[in-house]
Amino acid sequence: MAAPIDYANLSTPPACVADFCLIPIGTTTASVSNEVAAVQRLMKASGLSYSMHSAGTTVEGSWDEVMKLIGQAHTLVHQNGVLRVQTDIRAGTSRTDKEQHFSEKVTKVESILAADTK
Amino acid sequence: MAAPIDYANLSTPPACVADFCLIPIGTTTASVSNEVAAVQRLMKASGLSYSMHSAGTTVEGSWDEVMKLIGQAHTLVHQNGVLRVQTDIRAGTSRTDKEQHFSEKVTKVESILAADTK
Amino acid sequence: MAAPIDYANLSTPPACVADFCLIPIGTTTASVSNEVAAVQRLMKASGLSYSMHSAGTTVEGSWDEVMKLIGQAHTLVHQNGVLRVQTDIRAGTSRTDKEQHFSEKVTKVESILAADTK
Amino acid sequence: MAAPIDYANLSTPPACVADFCLIPIGTTTASVSNEVAAVQRLMKASGLSYSMHSAGTTVEGSWDEVMKLIGQAHTLVHQNGVLRVQTDIRAGTSRTDKEQHFSEKVTKVESILAADTK
Repeated sequence: MAAPIDYANLSTPPACVADFCLIPIGTTTASVSNEVAAVQRLMKASGLSYSMHSAGTTVEGSWDEVMKLIGQAHTLVHQNGVLRVQTDIRAGTSRTDKEQHFSEKVTKVESILAADTK
Repeated sequence: MAAPIDYANLSTPPACVADFCLIPIGTTTASVSNEVAAVQRLMKASGLSYSMHSAGTTVEGSWDEVMKLIGQAHTLVHQNGVLRVQTDIRAGTSRTDKEQHFSEKVTKVESILAADTK
Repeated sequence: MAAPIDYANLSTPPACVADFCLIPIGTTTASVSNEVAAVQRLMKASGLSYSMHSAGTTVEGSWDEVMKLIGQAHTLVHQNGVLRVQTDIRAGTSRTDKEQHFSEKVTKVESILAADTK
Repeated sequence: MAAPIDYANLSTPPACVADFCLIPIGTTTASVSNEVAAVQRLMKASGLSYSMHSAGTTVEGSWDEVMKLIGQAHTLVHQNGVLRVQTDIRAGTSRTDKEQHFSEKVTKVESILAADTK
């Protein structure tokens, strides 16, 4: 029989890659560029590795660092007057200590595709 | 001109509703029921309000509590031998102090629909 | 060497379970209950199996039926005056002909959890 | 009183931007590079505008074109032997005829950020 799990003392993952898409709700305009720009300034100030694309922002760090940062993004957008904020987060972690660097994923796929034309 | 923002000291939201769908990757079986059950035991031990449905689990608490719990779920599944874990999280927050209780959302929509048949 | 794939004639999956969360953007109110109710009426009219929960709606059918229905939901909300609509969809399919019924997933997990207390 | 809605004849949106992240489940390896590469070949063959990033692929076209393509990606991965496939899709549409080009979104945010340093 397995020992009972000490749930309260479970750690969170030391490394995480998260891609998030933040949506302000209840603004009078459908443009979200200003909110996205405000969040990008926060990302830069954080010191974590991140990359903006047209459908979100990818960021990597410890689970706690990454999730705190996305939570701060919510607070920032609320402080700018937005009543509700909804974010879709795709969060990935690995069991091994091997760090996942998000930029390497695209390189690996591109090298597979490059072999197609040879 | 606005005062510069003290990014490092931005708080995270005091109330959050998150719906998450956790996917174990690199398991030899396509069934995820055991992993989902393990996560449900963690949810119960947390003391937070939560509800499982067929496409995920909804949980509410402070941003930090909710995100810590989902991170612990990753750790738990990794401890069970799963190499990679990917989770989709829909996280919502509100600017006001008004607590969002997820169960009330369905009730409100159902009351609108109930008026259709009168 | 494998035969070249006829991409244009690839079919879409005959069975799909999708959970979607639709968000109207650029509305003057932060409440989305009326939009959600309008979408629920559409779901009912579709004849597909579906279930609303506080963080979205789960629906099952063929890939084409399910995605057409979610697209119609966007059109419906636009017709109600909403400028932009953003939806998060979690879509799952299986290789086998075995039908996936979303309600069975919860039952299976609950039966695993029920054994805990014996 | 509003006229009843003809749900069956509701169209789907003529323009859509979707960002999707496809996850194969029940593979013996945690690497998804081969599946991602196979999907990229399908994207190329489709003729639609698309862009791969580390957390997914963004594609634009009509709602029906985009969703058919993602469904074909599921079929392709199943044909490669993967038992279950789960995809997270962020789909956005606009009420106006104004086409949304996803590459313009990043440019707009970058121009706002560029003004910060002036």
